Amino acid sequence: MSSTGRKIHVLGAGLVGPLMAVYLARKGFQVELIERRPDMRKTDIAAGRSINLALTARGIRALKGVRLAEEVMKIAIPMKGRMVHDREGHTQLQPYGQKPEEVIYAVSRGLLNMLLLDAAEKCDGLNITFNRRCAGYDEKTGALTLQDEGTGAQETVETNVVIGADGAWSALRKSMMGAVENFSYAQDFLDYGYKELVIPSAADGGFLMEKHALHIWPHKSFMMIALPNTDGSFTVTLFYPYKGENSFEKLTMEAEVTAFFSEYFPDALPLMPGLTQDFFANPTGALVTVKCRPWHIGGKALLLGDAAHAIVPFFAQGMNSGFEDCAILNAMIEGDNPDWQAVFEKFSAARKPDTDAIADMAVENFTEMRDSVTDPRFLLKKKVGFEIERRWPEKFIPRYSMVIFHDEIPYAEARRRGALQAKLLEKLCADIDSPDDVDWRQAEKLVGEML
Amino acid sequence: MSSTGRKIHVLGAGLVGPLMAVYLARKGFQVELIERRPDMRKTDIAAGRSINLALTARGIRALKGVRLAEEVMKIAIPMKGRMVHDREGHTQLQPYGQKPEEVIYAVSRGLLNMLLLDAAEKCDGLNITFNRRCAGYDEKTGALTLQDEGTGAQETVETNVVIGADGAWSALRKSMMGAVENFSYAQDFLDYGYKELVIPSAADGGFLMEKHALHIWPHKSFMMIALPNTDGSFTVTLFYPYKGENSFEKLTMEAEVTAFFSEYFPDALPLMPGLTQDFFANPTGALVTVKCRPWHIGGKALLLGDAAHAIVPFFAQGMNSGFEDCAILNAMIEGDNPDWQAVFEKFSAARKPDTDAIADMAVENFTEMRDSVTDPRFLLKKKVGFEIERRWPEKFIPRYSMVIFHDEIPYAEARRRGALQAKLLEKLCADIDSPDDVDWRQAEKLVGEML
Repeated sequence: MSSTGRKIHVLGAGLVGPLMAVYLARKGFQVELIERRPDMRKTDIAAGRSINLALTARGIRALKGVRLAEEVMKIAIPMKGRMVHDREGHTQLQPYGQKPEEVIYAVSRGLLNMLLLDAAEKCDGLNITFNRRCAGYDEKTGALTLQDEGTGAQETVETNVVIGADGAWSALRKSMMGAVENFSYAQDFLDYGYKELVIPSAADGGFLMEKHALHIWPHKSFMMIALPNTDGSFTVTLFYPYKGENSFEKLTMEAEVTAFFSEYFPDALPLMPGLTQDFFANPTGALVTVKCRPWHIGGKALLLGDAAHAIVPFFAQGMNSGFEDCAILNAMIEGDNPDWQAVFEKFSAARKPDTDAIADMAVENFTEMRDSVTDPRFLLKKKVGFEIERRWPEKFIPRYSMVIFHDEIPYAEARRRGALQAKLLEKLCADIDSPDDVDWRQAEKLVGEML
Repeated sequence: MSSTGRKIHVLGAGLVGPLMAVYLARKGFQVELIERRPDMRKTDIAAGRSINLALTARGIRALKGVRLAEEVMKIAIPMKGRMVHDREGHTQLQPYGQKPEEVIYAVSRGLLNMLLLDAAEKCDGLNITFNRRCAGYDEKTGALTLQDEGTGAQETVETNVVIGADGAWSALRKSMMGAVENFSYAQDFLDYGYKELVIPSAADGGFLMEKHALHIWPHKSFMMIALPNTDGSFTVTLFYPYKGENSFEKLTMEAEVTAFFSEYFPDALPLMPGLTQDFFANPTGALVTVKCRPWHIGGKALLLGDAAHAIVPFFAQGMNSGFEDCAILNAMIEGDNPDWQAVFEKFSAARKPDTDAIADMAVENFTEMRDSVTDPRFLLKKKVGFEIERRWPEKFIPRYSMVIFHDEIPYAEARRRGALQAKLLEKLCADIDSPDDVDWRQAEKLVGEML
């Protein structure tokens, strides 16, 4: 086979692109990794972007596949559960799981990206080019047009296989949309935007709130969260409606912002000296779900990660599902001369139901985070669910745990099993107010019948 | 108020555009109706387009609103139900409703379009311009760029209000997508295409099959239908997968087409002398659902009909929902100087849940038409449903009847009530095989409890 045949172009050196590039290079492919932005290791990260995120089992497993998990864990902070803050400043920890290892990890997006770029650069046969925008892709010839972001000069390169890991607003997907007949596509925005803020570290570099938790201030129709950073700070994110009575459009002056935080986040306000400045300096981000089909053009081009399935952040599975894509695709690439069309078809068919499922669950989970976590019925069912898992672990795993901790359970299966479990919990908890009142004979019967 | 303020530009002189234009002109607005194609009354209709369709209560009501229903009825053929054809050529009529007036009407798209154009032209203050493509809309200034399809010359006109009734691939929507932040949009294609064919009239001009029925040849994974035309012919439409074992891609030669029709549509084949020629001459159409949000830009521009909500044809509600849009919007426009922003917001908020509902029900109904109509359980429930409607008409109306005959019930309500009714029928028919075996005491109890 010719050397062009062994060459793969990967678009996007964000999180998913470099990981896929490393997977491919370690399989012996020659990889051209192409990124629109400058090398982030040499310039500042763009302001206002999500600057930390939660790494969970699926992502960790994919990192293990290229022996990068250990290194990533060095910059990861375990979070044991949700620390729920009320308007009096009281807090309550709601554990994510019930085993010691059932934690999720806060990781700096920037540090993780740099680590992945470093790892990619060390691979034989892997070349990274920055400052090149994908300005077009010809699906007939495989010609990829790249534009130098500095000079504006365009060059056209021949490609054998192109993998678009170029994010929610993928340029490759845009080309596919124009070229592929009957291309199904959906971009679905929530009525909410988000604003990133910061709680800096203490004077001594320590944490001003519990380090090992994901903090939530739930207010039914909106919420704020905070994740720890290794430097002692927290990245704070306010999720708030764009319009209406309580919304971003009503927060136009410093006094309004301060009053709003004083009312709803009284314990956070004193920890945020730069609040009003950040609030007006940082952009309001949008929350979008992107679905599309097909993900590939024959054996020539494939979309991966956010480019194929961008999701909202409320299940912390954006990066994790993208990383999982890499491991799953990698496992389907066999031999030196794979039948790429067959690989891409198999990958799409296997993966799309799962990414559709996590997309929908992520939207649902917004309601859980901003509203249900303060609902006694929700908390009762959560506790009863953990107890059922203890008693019948083969039959019942809480949906949250399936998604977050059980990388062997595909997302679609987690959703399917989760729906049955929700019905079971509904029946079991209908007439009780405490986990102590559960009728365990009935529980055993229902578990046997329903699951 | 200035005369510009009373001027409304309507894009698209298909079915919905002219009807809306007539509504607006009769309210005293000055209406500019702009159409990309030539005047269809003076040229041939484009081949391969859906050339007849079913008019139902919602569409008729909207036509009555401008006193056009009587005239339309002159070119309409009542269809009492589905005439289901099996592979032995046997037929069975499944009535749509159970009252004499519960029929739907086959209407030629072309004749209806011409009738609406004639009606529009007769309105004072209504001007129609053909051969003008919408080449852009500036949402800030309201400037509309129109391109002469003959000469390519562009002109820019000032607008006060633009209504885009320019179809599933609306040019106005395309402009909005680029201009409106966080514009949610979905185009969702089925894996099926459609091919239009014909059963000509008999030598004496009569009908070769039952005139007053919508004919269906259901084959579980695919189907063919036929609707009568006033000239004695039937427009036949084959809905068939694009790809796979049984699909369009396997029908590439005349002998394959004939063998396929001989196997699945044996009674239709002898009635279709032009089959193979039509099959390869006519394009394969796509089946797409389009949803978007918002439908309007302030009080300046609004999408209507397919431009706002294109749906698949399996509930025959594409045109009917578009016509209903016109009547509902018209009822919300009050006074000589309406607050267009308020009108468009009210219209979108009221209407979007309904058009989302019919979009989803239309996709579901494909399964009903190609598969369920031969299922004894489905037919049993249909009969039991009619009987429940006879006994408790205030409580129970079959979902199909709500959508098709009950224009006073919004689509979303039809879906909601339909779901409850489906559960009730499931319970009531679980252990019986005949409508005679229904436990009517239980039925009364369930109707009281569930509906």
